[in-house]
Amino acid sequence: MARTYNFSAGPATLPLEVLEEAQRELLDYQGTGMSIMEHSHRGKAYMAVHEEAIANTKELLGLGDDYAVLFLQGGASLQFAMIPMNLLGAGQTADYTNSGSWAAKAIKEAKLLGHVNVAADCGKEIPTRVPLASEMNLTEGAAYVHITTNETISGAQWKSFPKTDAPLVADMSSDILSRPFNAQDFGLIYAGAQKNLAPAGMALVIMRKDLADRVPANVPSMLKYSTHIENDSMFNTCPCFTIYMYMLVTRWIKKTGLETLYARNVDKAARLYSAIDASDFYKGTAVPECRSDMNVTWRLPSEELEATFVKEALAEGFSGLKGHRSVGGIRASIYNAFPVEGVDALVSFMKDFEARNG
Amino acid sequence: MARTYNFSAGPATLPLEVLEEAQRELLDYQGTGMSIMEHSHRGKAYMAVHEEAIANTKELLGLGDDYAVLFLQGGASLQFAMIPMNLLGAGQTADYTNSGSWAAKAIKEAKLLGHVNVAADCGKEIPTRVPLASEMNLTEGAAYVHITTNETISGAQWKSFPKTDAPLVADMSSDILSRPFNAQDFGLIYAGAQKNLAPAGMALVIMRKDLADRVPANVPSMLKYSTHIENDSMFNTCPCFTIYMYMLVTRWIKKTGLETLYARNVDKAARLYSAIDASDFYKGTAVPECRSDMNVTWRLPSEELEATFVKEALAEGFSGLKGHRSVGGIRASIYNAFPVEGVDALVSFMKDFEARNG
Repeated sequence: MARTYNFSAGPATLPLEVLEEAQRELLDYQGTGMSIMEHSHRGKAYMAVHEEAIANTKELLGLGDDYAVLFLQGGASLQFAMIPMNLLGAGQTADYTNSGSWAAKAIKEAKLLGHVNVAADCGKEIPTRVPLASEMNLTEGAAYVHITTNETISGAQWKSFPKTDAPLVADMSSDILSRPFNAQDFGLIYAGAQKNLAPAGMALVIMRKDLADRVPANVPSMLKYSTHIENDSMFNTCPCFTIYMYMLVTRWIKKTGLETLYARNVDKAARLYSAIDASDFYKGTAVPECRSDMNVTWRLPSEELEATFVKEALAEGFSGLKGHRSVGGIRASIYNAFPVEGVDALVSFMKDFEARNG
Repeated sequence: MARTYNFSAGPATLPLEVLEEAQRELLDYQGTGMSIMEHSHRGKAYMAVHEEAIANTKELLGLGDDYAVLFLQGGASLQFAMIPMNLLGAGQTADYTNSGSWAAKAIKEAKLLGHVNVAADCGKEIPTRVPLASEMNLTEGAAYVHITTNETISGAQWKSFPKTDAPLVADMSSDILSRPFNAQDFGLIYAGAQKNLAPAGMALVIMRKDLADRVPANVPSMLKYSTHIENDSMFNTCPCFTIYMYMLVTRWIKKTGLETLYARNVDKAARLYSAIDASDFYKGTAVPECRSDMNVTWRLPSEELEATFVKEALAEGFSGLKGHRSVGGIRASIYNAFPVEGVDALVSFMKDFEARNG
């Protein structure tokens, strides 16, 4: 079978060996005569999957019992609301940094629920970038400070994280588990699963357990982190198959090694950025020091050429290269599971396309 | 491969031919060189799945353009909160009927968010039952009337639905698409997917579109039905694989016919209830006229015998027969995809068990 090179921003390429394992045991999970999709979430077979998914996450991020690993539904978008509902008390201020489309969405939802200070704003700058820690105008006694570690649409990424007095809260949807970092510097980390982790349908939430105590009593059960901590993400039926896929992916990350994956990710991105920089035809859209290792974004001399590029690339087996509809241009999303061969093939195509159209 | 007879209350047995199709194309969806899990939710391949899932639902339920079919996350449990957040205005009252554990959960969450009148309450009666329409003490001008059409834990089911002036809202998690009914009598229907519809990780919501206009402006985007109606359940990344599985299941229901499925469901349940009634050893827990066709519940003379029954049944290949931990006893969940052969095999086992222990 020929695998398409899938540059989608998410849902995205999954590790081939994970897909193969899921396929092999889809009808009969480990000799139980049932699919893992059919197992009760409270039965032994699924519970072992659930516990391994939590343990692998804690191991990969170096976290102890003071942190909870939660598997929630509603994606990062529901977290935009749950975070202020749980952590932003009446009379308090939350500091948010605006680095682009996703940060702006988090800010918009938080403003519905409490007082927000936009501590730094480069959300509409072109070339795109993330704020410098030194630009941040933080509030004394803030409930928390929110950052978006990688802007999937603009292709800008925080390369190091600010130190803050207030708990640091991060949307890591598009770069979670793509590089080593000190997770204990964060109060809460959340990520939609559909980029580096699993199929769509789950948000991974990692939080310092003590922060869950802040929640007001009238927040509905499903929207309280404390509910999910107390019930190990089984207050209601969890998205078992997505968590099973996530567990297989974390096994694959452990086997590969997070440092190795990070080196591969940097290398894959560098090959694309080098091709862009070596040409006057292609122009990167992010400030060089903020260039994302996950979502590489660039422009061609005209929108017409961009459309031709996307169309011809698709015919050659490169899927998902069209930039987000809100910004246009080209975007190559190259998450953990995307193979370096696909990057090299795209670079060849880019050279060829430029030779024909430059 | 020997399929286990899986009597789990959910996640539950899926149609074998659906699992087989999913397995066949798991690595390469219709020659695209990618898994359906890897396809962009905004790409052609997935969009066709999404649209078919909506169209099949509307066809099976006989609904037109005045109704929306939504695929949300958070299960029925998040709907317990979303319904009052969207439909229960300040100063209004919502009427709820209490028929057992699941109705009680819906009531508990609604009370956090607005004024609730418990219009009928038989939630703690034993034998278990659902309210009679004539018992309901409805509020004039109520925002809506809420019922739980099938109590998964107690095994009690509404056999016909009340006519109400206020919009009728129903949790159909455990009997949706198991029988024909007039969906246009309802304002909003919701159901967790993991019983009759798909793997866990999705709530199907069917609602009259005009009801979505009631929502206050300060409700977060992800918790507003209007957001999801306007974006066809793609405001954020939807749980694509679960929706794909649901689409395959709706194809299977259409092919089988809803009337045929209903006849099969009634027949399967009747075989079990006949076995229970023919014995003094087994005792059904629901009032006969409210007996569920989906979750058949009964007791043995002692908890010790019940534990032995569950253990020996498991050894014979009958999984998931233990009653919910909150009530004990035995529960056989026999949703749409559960085969009649499994029911007959269980009836034989029951007779044998009684002969040895009665």
